Amino acid sequence: MSEGKRIISMSHGSGGKLSHELITGLFLKKLNNPILAQLEDSAFIQIGDLPLVFTTDSYVVKPIFFPGGDIGKLAVYGTVNDISVMGARPLFISCGFIIEEGMDYTLLEKIVDSISAAAEKARVKIVTGDTKVVERGSGDGLFINTSGIGIIENGVHLGIGNIKVGDKIILSGTLGDHGIAVLSCREGFNFQSEIVSDSAPLWDMVSGMLKISRKIRFMRDPTRGGLGTLLNEVALGSSFCVMIEEAQLPVREDVRSLCEIIGIDPIYVANEGKLVAIVAPDDAEAVLKVMKGYPEGIEARLIGEITEEHKGKVCLATMVGGLRIIDMFVGDQLPRIC
Amino acid sequence: MSEGKRIISMSHGSGGKLSHELITGLFLKKLNNPILAQLEDSAFIQIGDLPLVFTTDSYVVKPIFFPGGDIGKLAVYGTVNDISVMGARPLFISCGFIIEEGMDYTLLEKIVDSISAAAEKARVKIVTGDTKVVERGSGDGLFINTSGIGIIENGVHLGIGNIKVGDKIILSGTLGDHGIAVLSCREGFNFQSEIVSDSAPLWDMVSGMLKISRKIRFMRDPTRGGLGTLLNEVALGSSFCVMIEEAQLPVREDVRSLCEIIGIDPIYVANEGKLVAIVAPDDAEAVLKVMKGYPEGIEARLIGEITEEHKGKVCLATMVGGLRIIDMFVGDQLPRIC
Repeated sequence: MSEGKRIISMSHGSGGKLSHELITGLFLKKLNNPILAQLEDSAFIQIGDLPLVFTTDSYVVKPIFFPGGDIGKLAVYGTVNDISVMGARPLFISCGFIIEEGMDYTLLEKIVDSISAAAEKARVKIVTGDTKVVERGSGDGLFINTSGIGIIENGVHLGIGNIKVGDKIILSGTLGDHGIAVLSCREGFNFQSEIVSDSAPLWDMVSGMLKISRKIRFMRDPTRGGLGTLLNEVALGSSFCVMIEEAQLPVREDVRSLCEIIGIDPIYVANEGKLVAIVAPDDAEAVLKVMKGYPEGIEARLIGEITEEHKGKVCLATMVGGLRIIDMFVGDQLPRIC
Repeated sequence: MSEGKRIISMSHGSGGKLSHELITGLFLKKLNNPILAQLEDSAFIQIGDLPLVFTTDSYVVKPIFFPGGDIGKLAVYGTVNDISVMGARPLFISCGFIIEEGMDYTLLEKIVDSISAAAEKARVKIVTGDTKVVERGSGDGLFINTSGIGIIENGVHLGIGNIKVGDKIILSGTLGDHGIAVLSCREGFNFQSEIVSDSAPLWDMVSGMLKISRKIRFMRDPTRGGLGTLLNEVALGSSFCVMIEEAQLPVREDVRSLCEIIGIDPIYVANEGKLVAIVAPDDAEAVLKVMKGYPEGIEARLIGEITEEHKGKVCLATMVGGLRIIDMFVGDQLPRIC
């Protein structure tokens, strides 16, 4: 660390190493409490006898419309998914808008239409909201915060602490579609095969998975920072080794090509309609089969397992027979994709 | 409305007439559901047997440090107060940061310290958070969203629908301190008597009020848009007349002077540690007495009552014996004060 003035950089918002340092070194340290310290996608909050979860996310995606979605759809599904991967049914959502002066009213109308449609599809109610306007040049079109509340039913308890050696790792579908769709649109890349965001609500599939198995240990959606970041969080949080097989990682051919051109590993690219489930070995096949029955899980597959070899590390068994450590990435590969 | 392209203006975020039109004409219309439609400071959400409230607010105050507070303190107390005025005990808060690239890390640390101290004072837990970074020039230092959950105890039910003719209107203290403190700081006005924000958590006082009376009909805090906007919401929502006496409106002398100089009526200026309570006439004196026992209510007083004369209107009995209609204001008198 230099002796000079420390400033916030784009990398602090990337989901990578600096984001992690900001969260643990500043927010966790100063706002210390055991619920926040769990660093799950949503906070467990017991109120009376009710096991609830509570989560928040701000959306600053640029541009606000992109192939397969827009900031409104993303804001609803993103928060719904953060609730769902806790094994909780999404119930209520809040919506806070920060609008830049001069925004076209008809675009805002389109976004609100999209929010409305997404809330209906995800069967959540938007019950409270807020609108702020900032001067031209003090914002960037539109930022949206959504917070959400869900309820855990049937005594489900998911968390990194449940993970055991031998557990199987399931990924619900292809990697990087969302991040590359936004990037392509923003940078004006032209590709014959149009890549669209995978933004989708996951509760229906999660609900089906929870019905078939009581041995799902943990779930999370690989959004900002992608699968690579998620698996590192699992390795760090569980203190086990996360061993995955490169040959099993599904990446669309056009996504892979574009990643190669721009020098990004798809393992770090954001997804908005995917999840990783870590499941006891005897239930893994059954869970996988259920997932394949949902549109969001058609391409689900086993990608690896929890081992003891390199504790706290993510190891990729490469297709040429080597073993590569997948670290948290440093830098800001793909800013503002959510 | 002109035939040209409609755009979002600063007035859409002012809390005045255009804000109201944006909320009812766009958000309520498209996201229509009965909970949102109540337009209270927090949404009532019944989960199982638990009567909860849920609220959200984004904070874009400029500058982020001002006399008597900062954006962090404001973000915690603002959301805590939106819960409290529903008669609900604040429990859990979320915190979403949108940071502009280049922000001084030590300033962010100070804000997080302030959030931590405010949460402790208000006895709420910050249980979930999110951080986004936007490029230099795409934000303005720091925006914070806080959402919050509270619980209603002892079957309290407050709401505009409870208001009856003859009810008394109590205001907890002086008008306009917060808005003028922020404005003075932003515009570099120098005054001998420094005006400081009234930002403060109100739950302790509210809790005391609820203990002494079961006949508090409604409470709300006069933030953006001030007392004038709040009373118009009451008049519109109840369809009665809100009659207040100018002589009873407490305004600090230095706040009044500055308002005169810049041509703003203090009745429209934001407060961040004040509330209005509408109480049945037989309990009004007792509630007032309790309020005066708290630091936040020392200057509480009766300012008027609910009548039938001019339905849906707010009337001010002036000190010279006239009657003036207080409308919702049009324009953006004081942008970015919260």
